[in-house]
Amino acid sequence: MKNRKITLSEQEIPEKWYNIIADMPNKPLPPLHPETKEPIGPEALAPLFPMELIKQEVTTDKWVEIPDEVRNIYSIWRPTPLYRAYGLEKALDTPAKIYYKYEGVSPAGSHKPNTSVPQAYYNKQEGIKRITTETGAGQWGSALAFACNHFDIECEVYMVKLSYQHKPYRKVMMNTWGANVFPSPSEATEAGRKILAKDPNTTGSLGIAISEAVERAATNEDTKYALGSVLNHVKLHQTIIGQEAVAQMEKVGDMPDIVIAPFGGGSNFAGLAFPFLRLNFDEGKNIRCIASEPTSCPKLTRGVFRYDYGDTVGMTPLLPMYTLGHNFVPAPIHAGGLRYHGAGVIVSQLLKDKLIEASAHDNIEVFEAGVTFARSEGIIPAPEATHGIATAIAEAQKCKEEGISKTILFNLCGHGNFDMKAYEDYFAGNIVKHELTSEEINRSIAELDTPEIK
Amino acid sequence: MKNRKITLSEQEIPEKWYNIIADMPNKPLPPLHPETKEPIGPEALAPLFPMELIKQEVTTDKWVEIPDEVRNIYSIWRPTPLYRAYGLEKALDTPAKIYYKYEGVSPAGSHKPNTSVPQAYYNKQEGIKRITTETGAGQWGSALAFACNHFDIECEVYMVKLSYQHKPYRKVMMNTWGANVFPSPSEATEAGRKILAKDPNTTGSLGIAISEAVERAATNEDTKYALGSVLNHVKLHQTIIGQEAVAQMEKVGDMPDIVIAPFGGGSNFAGLAFPFLRLNFDEGKNIRCIASEPTSCPKLTRGVFRYDYGDTVGMTPLLPMYTLGHNFVPAPIHAGGLRYHGAGVIVSQLLKDKLIEASAHDNIEVFEAGVTFARSEGIIPAPEATHGIATAIAEAQKCKEEGISKTILFNLCGHGNFDMKAYEDYFAGNIVKHELTSEEINRSIAELDTPEIK
Repeated sequence: MKNRKITLSEQEIPEKWYNIIADMPNKPLPPLHPETKEPIGPEALAPLFPMELIKQEVTTDKWVEIPDEVRNIYSIWRPTPLYRAYGLEKALDTPAKIYYKYEGVSPAGSHKPNTSVPQAYYNKQEGIKRITTETGAGQWGSALAFACNHFDIECEVYMVKLSYQHKPYRKVMMNTWGANVFPSPSEATEAGRKILAKDPNTTGSLGIAISEAVERAATNEDTKYALGSVLNHVKLHQTIIGQEAVAQMEKVGDMPDIVIAPFGGGSNFAGLAFPFLRLNFDEGKNIRCIASEPTSCPKLTRGVFRYDYGDTVGMTPLLPMYTLGHNFVPAPIHAGGLRYHGAGVIVSQLLKDKLIEASAHDNIEVFEAGVTFARSEGIIPAPEATHGIATAIAEAQKCKEEGISKTILFNLCGHGNFDMKAYEDYFAGNIVKHELTSEEINRSIAELDTPEIK
Repeated sequence: MKNRKITLSEQEIPEKWYNIIADMPNKPLPPLHPETKEPIGPEALAPLFPMELIKQEVTTDKWVEIPDEVRNIYSIWRPTPLYRAYGLEKALDTPAKIYYKYEGVSPAGSHKPNTSVPQAYYNKQEGIKRITTETGAGQWGSALAFACNHFDIECEVYMVKLSYQHKPYRKVMMNTWGANVFPSPSEATEAGRKILAKDPNTTGSLGIAISEAVERAATNEDTKYALGSVLNHVKLHQTIIGQEAVAQMEKVGDMPDIVIAPFGGGSNFAGLAFPFLRLNFDEGKNIRCIASEPTSCPKLTRGVFRYDYGDTVGMTPLLPMYTLGHNFVPAPIHAGGLRYHGAGVIVSQLLKDKLIEASAHDNIEVFEAGVTFARSEGIIPAPEATHGIATAIAEAQKCKEEGISKTILFNLCGHGNFDMKAYEDYFAGNIVKHELTSEEINRSIAELDTPEIK
């Protein structure tokens, strides 16, 4: 029998998260105050996040210990399996060896609980009673609901009204874990009421939902806010993925030449890739790490490296990032998790320094890749995950053309059980390409009045 | 850290299925011809099933070897994890130790691929080009689609029209694995056309869908039919579950006093329980095995033991079974997999001989159990699975009342990702109890003109 699945025991769940900042040749530039544009310190985050997470946001320690209680909850689904993709290799008739790490085995169905669990834990440690967040498609909201339920913390999710109406099942999932889900804009916040007064029929946006969740945290002593990607501490928590994958690759006596992961805000990619980049730093390895983004939201492949806001309204600190401009509105692709205008600061600096690469795929290419994968490997991937598959397939085909064998590893970050509508649209021919013209991108970037980076 | 999850390596996937018939003190009575009512042999099944499965249907060998290629596909998701339910134990404040085997990690989300994979394999071996089946809610149809896709066999699924319209996502899942899904009744069969001519607006029924799938197999040389429960070979394949569970319990140095599984046609229950019953037979153990059924379809707890048809129309052989009568129409509960009027012959004989037990739970009790489980263990169970949880909770509460500790193991046969509508209904207070009166049951049984069993 083929050795298809490489597993680790519960005892092999890593005991520390890896902080890549310690190893970066050029550290990320400091955040700037949104108005004064002067560098700001971590204390600016205190109204929104518990102290321990703020410490993690700025620490330069190479390793951060994972609390036992967090590892205990991780063990519900971790270590996750790493697969040798024999079926996909055969379907592509490629000399490449393909592996994937499967994060869809978590109860919420994606990699997101890797960070929602420690975030809920640290909030609980500091006596916080309620955590608020926003969610678009619902992946992050359900991961946070799952985590808060475990620590008996109230969870308040502001869900973009359009998604709330069109994706009722993600909402029910959050309810099942005890979360309160509000269609955003809602009557529960000043920000929501203002917008509703102006336009009672608005379908909402992620920007509005963020404003509501942040307002609740900023105006209530016992309430904090949680974010599912972009920030350093989120990336830190996700490195559990890559550390397990390194151990699993070593277990089968192999090591990837190429590591690939989907890219939204950066935590998915950071999670798998950073522990392999550590091997480049520490052991002189030369592993290529490629971030996969949609051509409809190509901040890494076509964006600009400069200071920009994390939100649409311009309330967050200014961060040094690859961005399409904070006013950029991506096409409504099914991979909702990849529709973010910018990239987290660590990944941006790494790309600037050419320590990682990026690749973009259009909407049709990724669904072709997703169906090829489902039919050859048996697992139906989430639309976000299909982007990593598309890059892996492209690299495997290059191997075939060049007649060489490389070892490719990608992050299968979630299953598609809640995304069947996307596949239905694909089979019905209702998926469109969404290629951006240079004019569209330049226009959005030209609007920026934020500081440039020399 | 607590040892929450007991795992096995790929190499520990069992190499044989366990055939309980070899150990039964009283063997099941023979099937009878539907018209002559004379005992019939396995050759009667030849138009519908490949020879190897017919051999497995009647074999008295204690062990049946699992082909390497089947074990190879099993390894996509097997061995499945066995969990110690620390969270549920705490929520119930019980001295009982609770374990569960989790079958929802399969790509189709339930235990069904344990049998769809070998069924597709044996059909492929015998040169079959197409397999037909019926499906209600879609669990079995998607499991068969998954398996046929792997062996490059055409898969034709007749899906009850009402489900086809109300559960489009299960259909898309089957399409993603390349299956053709027809709303039943369809124009593709004589049986379907007849019914449509009479009533073009019918929403279909499982009985009609069976007739269509069977007709296609019976009238095409290269086409066979597949069934997802009830039959002996289906139960045989599912024993992979219990064999792994025995090994996992031994690994933690524990052994269940009570083994519990949901009951529809019997393969779910057989899968977990039979390998533990083997320990009763072979090693003189005294493990109680309890089948959990809905009070709305209580064939084991309130049915009669006699010959009855497997289908509604009365075309199948007469089988010795616990039954509510083949015309019994259960209430439309969300646990569609448990809405079958009868029980498979092996389980029926075991119950008759008091070697197993049965327990029934109403619709509200099971959703309460499901939500308690989701909030204490993190995994949202399928409606079918909540029945096993309800029995486990009842037994754990008995332990608390009596101040004794027992070890309880149940089969968490699938996740609820495709059943969020059921939870939505539960939270909205739209779930009703469906208790049957004795009159209703007696009326259905009184209609039977099938042979009684002395």
